[in-house]
Amino acid sequence: MTQSDDTAIHLSLAELTALLARVFRANGCSDDVAAILAANCAGAEAVGSFSHGVFRIDGYVSTLRSGWVDGTARPVIDAPAPAFLRVDAGNGFAQPALAAARPQFVEMVRANGIAALAIRHSHHFGALWPDVEPFAEDGLIALSLVNSFACVVPFGGKKPLLGTNPIAFAAPVDGADPLVFDFATTVMAHGDVQIAAREGRTLPEGVGVDADGAPTRDPKAILDGGALLPFGGHKGSALSIMIELMAAGLTGGNFSFEFDWSDHPGAQTPVTGQILIGIDAAHAGGESFAHRSRNLIDGMAASGYAGYPGARRAAMRREGAGEHIPLTPAIYEKLQGYANQEL
Amino acid sequence: MTQSDDTAIHLSLAELTALLARVFRANGCSDDVAAILAANCAGAEAVGSFSHGVFRIDGYVSTLRSGWVDGTARPVIDAPAPAFLRVDAGNGFAQPALAAARPQFVEMVRANGIAALAIRHSHHFGALWPDVEPFAEDGLIALSLVNSFACVVPFGGKKPLLGTNPIAFAAPVDGADPLVFDFATTVMAHGDVQIAAREGRTLPEGVGVDADGAPTRDPKAILDGGALLPFGGHKGSALSIMIELMAAGLTGGNFSFEFDWSDHPGAQTPVTGQILIGIDAAHAGGESFAHRSRNLIDGMAASGYAGYPGARRAAMRREGAGEHIPLTPAIYEKLQGYANQEL
Repeated sequence: MTQSDDTAIHLSLAELTALLARVFRANGCSDDVAAILAANCAGAEAVGSFSHGVFRIDGYVSTLRSGWVDGTARPVIDAPAPAFLRVDAGNGFAQPALAAARPQFVEMVRANGIAALAIRHSHHFGALWPDVEPFAEDGLIALSLVNSFACVVPFGGKKPLLGTNPIAFAAPVDGADPLVFDFATTVMAHGDVQIAAREGRTLPEGVGVDADGAPTRDPKAILDGGALLPFGGHKGSALSIMIELMAAGLTGGNFSFEFDWSDHPGAQTPVTGQILIGIDAAHAGGESFAHRSRNLIDGMAASGYAGYPGARRAAMRREGAGEHIPLTPAIYEKLQGYANQEL
Repeated sequence: MTQSDDTAIHLSLAELTALLARVFRANGCSDDVAAILAANCAGAEAVGSFSHGVFRIDGYVSTLRSGWVDGTARPVIDAPAPAFLRVDAGNGFAQPALAAARPQFVEMVRANGIAALAIRHSHHFGALWPDVEPFAEDGLIALSLVNSFACVVPFGGKKPLLGTNPIAFAAPVDGADPLVFDFATTVMAHGDVQIAAREGRTLPEGVGVDADGAPTRDPKAILDGGALLPFGGHKGSALSIMIELMAAGLTGGNFSFEFDWSDHPGAQTPVTGQILIGIDAAHAGGESFAHRSRNLIDGMAASGYAGYPGARRAAMRREGAGEHIPLTPAIYEKLQGYANQEL
């Protein structure tokens, strides 16, 4: 929902999370998986990340019903090196795999100064910042990269090959909310193009191309055989290539162009991989890292920069954004229907 | 030099490297430091990276003569955690610090799967890809970030605060040259703006602003009190902020806006920090990483993408670009003058 109106139904974050957990459970997810995905999705909706909020539920449900993803998968963890942890998500979602590995991974990061968590055979369909933000809340630095499905033409290429391949980063800040960013390496996120198509909006120049590779401002032409373009020309394209290599090549996951979901109509969640790098700055010495990041934030404020990445979301939460989340009656009823309609 | 002409003097890579090493030695560098900087600079010139080639020598020499950097500094290395290596460059250049720490760092990466190398109190004035490419040649993945000096207005800010803050990445590819990229997180690299100013060229839209913060296409206006803009709007700006935090905040170096070189007229090399993350994909299991990166390269070729990041430089070297490097007579004489004129 992009704006409140008189007919809206308001749920608290806890109520929306509980409703979404019922939706996930009714569509084949275990209790644990349902709770994790519901928290990610409701948390995004609460702070206005609509493209990763309730909007995603249709895609989750159709994917679960198609049999493409295993909502009850149990992640398998192993540690092939002192600072390298691997998780086979077993064709389940990436977030429960991260949750299962997190305690051991945090220990690895603290013991070694840096560690990598490589998740493979996993589906990531949610916002990425909820994966990194908790590390910053624990005083650690986290960087995560995920690849997705072939819908982006690399700079200088002709056909879609790369995913929207987001990058997320979180770092602690002394006496302030963590610095957190999360962005797709495309000009526009895929979910935002879907929302624009639904709302009949025309896009800015440079977002994507149609099925013939010609520039278009029509979101439907991009979604219907066309493709997105990387942000920042060859630079964003190079980052996206790095993300393919790190999130899939390094983890043992699929590249964005490698999997075939055509036998599972309704499937929307890419089965790829995710890499997470954690750093414990306590080993770095000198002034505390959080104090230094505060110096940078203060410098940015002095240079006229209002806020910093992640500050708006944190402020919204403090100001009670999670207490009255508006949903249209139609969407509320649809969610109730998903929750009550057993497979 | 941007083009060959009849009067050009041609040097081999070995000859140019030897001449530049003499320049560095004559201006206060130790033999080791001179050899490392000369190889970086001549190697960039040889493959057409002119903004980090011979063009840089005036800046190196004026900086060394100003007393701002110590050309004889001896890096001090310590390992506060099993996968975290630190180097205090002692107000010297970053590349000799990396060279000194490299053997121990490579051992750390291979033993732990991932490791971080944090260099502080260091000056980086050269191309960044030569720092990462050798790791890929050794079968490792490397990512490096460096911050520089305040010449970039963060997205949404009003005054220069960030550096041009390059990011470089290298990965091995089965049976092919490594995939390597290196780019400034600005629309245009600072060195390229300097070259455009020298040649009297007008810049494309969006590169920078003048001293009043107004958009300008005049490179002199950008260099004379103006500022560069991050590439890709808020996304490139967020990456640049991450690079400040990782290259300076984490290492114990200066942020790009923190040091004051006004007492050293002629100083051009920022004294900041550098982070390098190395990964040994041998621990990741599954198919070899280099085989997987080859799959990606092949997929890119099939999608119409000609070459891949780093392939052009490697091909130039194989085709003998380092055998006949052209210099104008004026530049050749200037280099000889620098080499023969003791401080």
